[in-house]
Amino acid sequence: MKNFALKGDIIFTPTPEKFQSAQDSYIVCEDGMVSGIWKELPERFSGIRVLDYSGRLIFPGLCDLHIHAPQYSFRGMGMDMELLSWLETYTFPEEAKYGDLEYAQKAYEIFTNDLRKSATSRVNVFATIHGEATVLLMDLLEKAGMRGFAGKVNMDRNCPDYYKEKDADTSVQDTWSWYESVKDRTGIRPILSPRFLPTCSDRLMEQLKEVQKKTGLYMQTHLSENPGEVEWVKELAPWSEFYGDAYDHFGMFGNHGKTVMAHCVYSGKEERDLMSKRGVYVAHCPQSNLNLSSGIAPVRAMMEEGLHVGLGTDMAGGASLSILRVMTDAVQVSKMYWRYLDQDKKPLSASEAFYLGTKGGGSFFGNVGSFEQGCEFDAVVLNDTPIKTALDPDMEQRMERAMYLSQNEHIMAKYIHGQEVFRR
Amino acid sequence: MKNFALKGDIIFTPTPEKFQSAQDSYIVCEDGMVSGIWKELPERFSGIRVLDYSGRLIFPGLCDLHIHAPQYSFRGMGMDMELLSWLETYTFPEEAKYGDLEYAQKAYEIFTNDLRKSATSRVNVFATIHGEATVLLMDLLEKAGMRGFAGKVNMDRNCPDYYKEKDADTSVQDTWSWYESVKDRTGIRPILSPRFLPTCSDRLMEQLKEVQKKTGLYMQTHLSENPGEVEWVKELAPWSEFYGDAYDHFGMFGNHGKTVMAHCVYSGKEERDLMSKRGVYVAHCPQSNLNLSSGIAPVRAMMEEGLHVGLGTDMAGGASLSILRVMTDAVQVSKMYWRYLDQDKKPLSASEAFYLGTKGGGSFFGNVGSFEQGCEFDAVVLNDTPIKTALDPDMEQRMERAMYLSQNEHIMAKYIHGQEVFRR
Repeated sequence: MKNFALKGDIIFTPTPEKFQSAQDSYIVCEDGMVSGIWKELPERFSGIRVLDYSGRLIFPGLCDLHIHAPQYSFRGMGMDMELLSWLETYTFPEEAKYGDLEYAQKAYEIFTNDLRKSATSRVNVFATIHGEATVLLMDLLEKAGMRGFAGKVNMDRNCPDYYKEKDADTSVQDTWSWYESVKDRTGIRPILSPRFLPTCSDRLMEQLKEVQKKTGLYMQTHLSENPGEVEWVKELAPWSEFYGDAYDHFGMFGNHGKTVMAHCVYSGKEERDLMSKRGVYVAHCPQSNLNLSSGIAPVRAMMEEGLHVGLGTDMAGGASLSILRVMTDAVQVSKMYWRYLDQDKKPLSASEAFYLGTKGGGSFFGNVGSFEQGCEFDAVVLNDTPIKTALDPDMEQRMERAMYLSQNEHIMAKYIHGQEVFRR
Repeated sequence: MKNFALKGDIIFTPTPEKFQSAQDSYIVCEDGMVSGIWKELPERFSGIRVLDYSGRLIFPGLCDLHIHAPQYSFRGMGMDMELLSWLETYTFPEEAKYGDLEYAQKAYEIFTNDLRKSATSRVNVFATIHGEATVLLMDLLEKAGMRGFAGKVNMDRNCPDYYKEKDADTSVQDTWSWYESVKDRTGIRPILSPRFLPTCSDRLMEQLKEVQKKTGLYMQTHLSENPGEVEWVKELAPWSEFYGDAYDHFGMFGNHGKTVMAHCVYSGKEERDLMSKRGVYVAHCPQSNLNLSSGIAPVRAMMEEGLHVGLGTDMAGGASLSILRVMTDAVQVSKMYWRYLDQDKKPLSASEAFYLGTKGGGSFFGNVGSFEQGCEFDAVVLNDTPIKTALDPDMEQRMERAMYLSQNEHIMAKYIHGQEVFRR
């Protein structure tokens, strides 16, 4: 099915300010790209296959800029700690298990099956330190039809002996081996994934920079998530002006390839300015930031300052795999930010949150997250009729309701880069 | 089916501090009450009907202390305002429609059908100012097997002409007519429901006190939800020390009958002390308090001070009808309260939030919300196996996962006061 059209109630956000919609219309996919949207199919598409989803919402596939695949096992459990103790208590013991490929297969199959049936089309995924299990995860993600990036984690200090790479050189060698085995993939591509500065030695960071310069790999890591973490980085890099400056010192802050930083809850103006200058993406993960008592990121400021911002579940800091849910989390926390932290920063609107979860994060992956002509064709079909009401909501209201109230089983079909991933 | 047993994985919170559970056990219902929990059924129950839910979670029916039934139509829409403008823009125009019984029937059927299939067993419901439509709502709630309270709303000032009672006397007369027609009900009982102080004249409040003194009716209203509202009450009742003191002045603060106040976000120590003294219940509605940018209620302080606290969805300030979801909202906002407002107030644990949504609010309705011997038999059966994991979570972890991740269709059966409400 190379070229086809979907018919239904089409909605998307070319800009954050407002939804654009076309009720009872056609969106055409040619060679994996969006050709356009029409009320009546133009002559030149006569004979094209039409999938009739009349009365259903059709919106761009969602983009999850930050997920930890191995943490999916313990999502929704152990919500009683802050970041650093949570890592020691729940995360490291679980991630260590993925050295066992049999366990990895079992756990990653559950994760990728659920991801396949979600509204998410693009992902940035952290695996574990294990190269082989990371390849396995990439296989399963591709089998699930997903697109995006996945990375073998680097960490060589400040972590327990049972889950730590021997030293910087071993970490980098293993990264090279893994990279060589996956470098030609186009569905799920490799990405450099140092866990975060506290668990990566200076030597490791310096060598990863060299890897990035040689390969052009994109990079993902964590930034300014938690006050204790921020303090720790000050101790570990006393010469740094701020947390992001420490990454920048090692040339790992968008200096040599596209980069996304998760959280940025405590990113002050200086840090944000440097992110802006380097084109670094923010993966805003409001649900995780609630669950780990981290705080509320200054997303309105980031948007005003022109930073690239997208959304992330941060599974399993976040419990839900749904970016629709994360959109509403983003709106909700922005209201508390306004109420308690800065009344000059107005809360996010529904369209702004939707934009972050689609086109905002989508640009990390290319021309993704919108239905404008020339975008990659990622589309989700959702049946919102089970969300009953005595009213007759318009398209925007229906989309907002879907964000707040839709359930997994309402998702009827998903297309990624023009491929049908599933259909109920 | 008068006496029966459910078999499965039973979990509840006799106290907030921890879950109590009994895996693969029997809970027996006799004449609508809990007889006890056993690993093997005692001799005296031989021959009793056993419903086998092995491997499923069985927990007490959830208690929603605060819902506006007529607002269900616009749940998940219009999340762009604070309380007072939200009332004017979305709420009053919608509630006004319920003077039309045909519309009320259509809308209330949707609401009560969804409530029936939820995990909620007990409710405190606000209807509208319309007596007949309120009776209709009570009929439909009873038909759905629900128990609790529903009230005709009183409001005679500071609201638009199209949705306002003529004057205090008319409001009270209509309340008497409505009360007479429903006073003998035992499933859904009447409750006094002045909207909130700003929309109720002094004369109305004084007369409602007399109604309460004569009838012994319970009462529900709103308290200290939003800063603008709190300021307004200061203007309307300049003689009052604080918002709750204004209700107390009219003898409508638990002085003459059991009383529940929704929100209490801005209830300071004095107000809380008076609530404690009068035995007034708090309906904590964290999801609504996020959506309407209201703020975060000091729930830890309330619990430490021994106040009665339960949870409410505050439909449609809250978008979700699920008290499981509200439990996790309560945990999440308590983390932001700790982070930004008072680090002496530790966040709620999973068991504490569960307690609030069951036994904490349940005592408003009687001996409800727990599985101790002698409690009214309200039970929910939930299939958590679709929430897949490679791990083997224990009972508490499974319950926490169900709070964060279960979907409507996972609810397999519900029993209220020993009656089977539905079974899949």
